[in-house]
Amino acid sequence: MASISNAFSLSLPSNRIANSSSDFNPITSALSGLDSGEFSPGRVAVSKPSGIGGRICANATPVMDQPVGEKSSGAPTIVEVDLGNRSYPIYIGSGLFDQPELLQKHVHGKKVIVVTNTTIAPLYLDKVVEALTKGNTAVSVEYVILPDGEKFKDMDTLMKVFDKAIESRLDRRCTFVALGGGVIGDMCGFAAASFLVNFIQIPTTVMAQVDSSVGGKTGINHPLGKNLIGAFYQPQCVLIDTDTLDTLPDRELASGLAEVIKYGLIRDAEFFQWQEKNMEKLIARNPNALAYAIKRSCENKAEVVSFDEKESGLRATLNLGHTFGHAIETGFGYGQWLHGEAVAAGMVSCHGC
Amino acid sequence: MASISNAFSLSLPSNRIANSSSDFNPITSALSGLDSGEFSPGRVAVSKPSGIGGRICANATPVMDQPVGEKSSGAPTIVEVDLGNRSYPIYIGSGLFDQPELLQKHVHGKKVIVVTNTTIAPLYLDKVVEALTKGNTAVSVEYVILPDGEKFKDMDTLMKVFDKAIESRLDRRCTFVALGGGVIGDMCGFAAASFLVNFIQIPTTVMAQVDSSVGGKTGINHPLGKNLIGAFYQPQCVLIDTDTLDTLPDRELASGLAEVIKYGLIRDAEFFQWQEKNMEKLIARNPNALAYAIKRSCENKAEVVSFDEKESGLRATLNLGHTFGHAIETGFGYGQWLHGEAVAAGMVSCHGC
Repeated sequence: MASISNAFSLSLPSNRIANSSSDFNPITSALSGLDSGEFSPGRVAVSKPSGIGGRICANATPVMDQPVGEKSSGAPTIVEVDLGNRSYPIYIGSGLFDQPELLQKHVHGKKVIVVTNTTIAPLYLDKVVEALTKGNTAVSVEYVILPDGEKFKDMDTLMKVFDKAIESRLDRRCTFVALGGGVIGDMCGFAAASFLVNFIQIPTTVMAQVDSSVGGKTGINHPLGKNLIGAFYQPQCVLIDTDTLDTLPDRELASGLAEVIKYGLIRDAEFFQWQEKNMEKLIARNPNALAYAIKRSCENKAEVVSFDEKESGLRATLNLGHTFGHAIETGFGYGQWLHGEAVAAGMVSCHGC
Repeated sequence: MASISNAFSLSLPSNRIANSSSDFNPITSALSGLDSGEFSPGRVAVSKPSGIGGRICANATPVMDQPVGEKSSGAPTIVEVDLGNRSYPIYIGSGLFDQPELLQKHVHGKKVIVVTNTTIAPLYLDKVVEALTKGNTAVSVEYVILPDGEKFKDMDTLMKVFDKAIESRLDRRCTFVALGGGVIGDMCGFAAASFLVNFIQIPTTVMAQVDSSVGGKTGINHPLGKNLIGAFYQPQCVLIDTDTLDTLPDRELASGLAEVIKYGLIRDAEFFQWQEKNMEKLIARNPNALAYAIKRSCENKAEVVSFDEKESGLRATLNLGHTFGHAIETGFGYGQWLHGEAVAAGMVSCHGC
């Protein structure tokens, strides 16, 4: 059985690490920097490893043979984010674009604008438009296709969303739909917050599915810092069709799995153990393993968010590795490093915190 | 005694009205267009006047000899805006910049950024900085001075606030202070909302004091429409030093009084009657009359906002005249018409609604 550290080194590009040596592995090194006192809010205690490349064992609990869940074939798995009158469901499963009722019951008003990018639009825009309109001709759907990448998560690109919405004469009774990765979700969410309308998240990367689409953090970058301009704004629902991961590049998959591992590290020892046993399946894109990892990650994030919606305390634990990670992303130019890569390297840096 | 219509015509520039005739008066005409069925949520029933220039009488209630309130000399009048955990006080009075404790008890963190404009900064920035820091050297104050006018209420100017905040290394534990009219308040409030920090409103025009600084509507204009990008975001407090009105141009005073009259029209017959008796004092800037009009207007707005914070119903009554008014402002170019002038003309247009 491959350990997380070894399995993960298959996917993360070593040339993304400044001053890397040939055997440098950010996840391995991140884990090597942990001791049991560093993540006090978590439920997991991690033994101090002997060095780079060492295997990580989660305290004394035996590694469990956690099931990977039933194959998603019909009804989606639902994770509820409990935020009072801002609560919403996360639907997780295969083939969810073929279940139009899931989206349609969360559409507000008669007009929808789908915000997506040049990579995702050719793959999934038609499917989503069909899901929004099938059997419901009263709804009209507009869309805006933005350039793809973190470096476009800025005010100029955000204005294109407002331009389209206003040219289309949308008012407050409409719905914005974010179709894409974390950049699209963050921008569309902030646009919806600033246009005072409802929105729906349809994340298409692991990173967006397990992190950025859950919890209502929306926003854009400033040239001097990442995510500095934004709002806490909760969606009406999150729809995760795991089939979208079939088209995800390997590097994006690895970046997302770094966030999955983070949940195990900071607060869920059993999940961490499950990851140890199932990392090869995750990297091989086993749909059941991915669906389970996404569900469990969303449950963890939803629980944290429900305790601390606006990041005044506990929720900050989710930022493990993010201080240095954001500095890397900003310093090297947005888009040079994927978020998960930078965060993984940031977790390494936490060793010296 | 001068009626509202006659008194008001002294101040509103007739050349602001498209196709104006020499005796056209937007307030007069606005009032002339009203009938008792048009403003159903209000408490006031207005008799239908005979024509342009006709005197308006608020139903059968006798006009009361409402006192203009005691001279503000010490403790401010306080109007509470009741919004649960987002409640806040509005302080109204003369000499409030000389009472630093009023501001300082609402400052969050050790860093403050004052957002103001080129007109207001030479007049009041030093006073406000002194009020923020007197006897409290632990607080450091930065400021950003924006160009003055509605045409600068845009994304480019908003970015200057973010630039300053980020260059000054402000984080979420800081306070933004809006010092100026409605444009500054709206932009600073939206900047604070999008930077996830607290803010304080110090409005320096009648318009901002009785309308835009109360209720948490913040935002900027889009080239295709006014106030289309924004957030509902409540301040920590509103501080209205009525002495700032000493430097207010006549045209700005008239624009603000149009909003004061609006409260009388839509929901407060007694206040309307009081205005009838005291309009000359208001135009002559009698400090007691102004303080009372501001207090009563804030009470009206606070009551509406407390029922309907996010403008889903009742609060929309405050938009009397705004649909056409915003169209005028957008169509002629932002800043060509003052907001109150455009709204007054919009009220005229409501005659045909």
